[in-house]
Amino acid sequence: MKIIGIIGGMGPAATIDLYKKIVENTPAEKDQEHIHVIIDSYPQIEDRTEYILYGGKNPAPRLIESAKRLESAGADALIMPCNTAHYFAKDIENIVNIPLIHIVKCSAEAVKNNYPKTKKIGLIATKGTIKAKIYNNILKDYGFETLTLPEKIENNIMDCIYKGVKAGKIEEYSRLFQQCIDEIADLGADLLIAGCTEIPLLMPYVKTKLPVIDATYELACAAVKFALEK
Amino acid sequence: MKIIGIIGGMGPAATIDLYKKIVENTPAEKDQEHIHVIIDSYPQIEDRTEYILYGGKNPAPRLIESAKRLESAGADALIMPCNTAHYFAKDIENIVNIPLIHIVKCSAEAVKNNYPKTKKIGLIATKGTIKAKIYNNILKDYGFETLTLPEKIENNIMDCIYKGVKAGKIEEYSRLFQQCIDEIADLGADLLIAGCTEIPLLMPYVKTKLPVIDATYELACAAVKFALEK
Repeated sequence: MKIIGIIGGMGPAATIDLYKKIVENTPAEKDQEHIHVIIDSYPQIEDRTEYILYGGKNPAPRLIESAKRLESAGADALIMPCNTAHYFAKDIENIVNIPLIHIVKCSAEAVKNNYPKTKKIGLIATKGTIKAKIYNNILKDYGFETLTLPEKIENNIMDCIYKGVKAGKIEEYSRLFQQCIDEIADLGADLLIAGCTEIPLLMPYVKTKLPVIDATYELACAAVKFALEK
Repeated sequence: MKIIGIIGGMGPAATIDLYKKIVENTPAEKDQEHIHVIIDSYPQIEDRTEYILYGGKNPAPRLIESAKRLESAGADALIMPCNTAHYFAKDIENIVNIPLIHIVKCSAEAVKNNYPKTKKIGLIATKGTIKAKIYNNILKDYGFETLTLPEKIENNIMDCIYKGVKAGKIEEYSRLFQQCIDEIADLGADLLIAGCTEIPLLMPYVKTKLPVIDATYELACAAVKFALEK
């Protein structure tokens, strides 16, 4: 059984969500059948969107520090429950000698396998993820189009993530979030991707007729598969 | 800010519960204000009760391996979300150079501070914890008496923990668990201690008039306090 290393804390609630999804999606009847996971919940890693959009402090050094800490501790592969942090995926891959299981590739695979007829995707993500085209480029390779959202929706999503989930005020922002996903549906999306790891925490509070790909869930399943593979 | 190391995976659901309680009880409005936690979720650590009661494989070597892994990764203190594992507390303390924040002492302090008039305590724990008197001796030092439970109740609690929570079947065992805590109340307990880290996961499904000390919550608060102390 291989060991999964999690570069976490971006934010902590999203890391809990990923860890929970790993445990829930492992075929196990007793403790010892679960996989060995080492989580570095390191919330001091600088804000990714702040850096990409506004020239904030570069989070790469701390991301690399965390990756090296996990590799030294024995991890056989790394995962990051933060979509925006994948802007720095190459920086991490260049330093460590273990693979990074890429959350965006997991999501794109899930769309391809489960909803192959999808054309237009409504991406629910941070402005950092959108600006840096972290999803767009990979989805394009798979033949999917990512809708461009009006700035107002993008701003409202940011509020749901930062003032809502990251500040521990999920319920208070659930109404604004419902409005966001309704507006994205109205723009003609065939499917939604919860492409920020804070978003699945808001999903139980809203309704949508569109299929939703939960990037965190897809990453959890890929990690379990990797760990159990012979 | 100090780093907390968690020797986890005993079981994984209990570790998630502790991590969640740490995050929820940290005064933070954004990611960076949360504490740095390294979790070694290592479910391969052998069953503690199996060893204490029936001469199963000794979990001490893996517990020590995990403690050393966390110390090497930079942890300033260790915590273990498994009450029974505290049977091996001294073995761990003898090896590492960082303190172990002791879950049973946290619980005893909580009883003393919040319910000082308590006389008889109903301890909900594994048979390993009970047999090894992990709680009894410490509670005695604080002037509290731990009720001796009939074996049938102890067995039913074991089923709730192992066949229920650890096997991912919480709801299915909630009725049996309700029966257990009702019977403990009938024996004359003034207060209950959820003295197994699987137990808080069952608590939302039952009702009791007695005050309940959640050992996991007390440990989480002690860890946050340690990490933020100047």
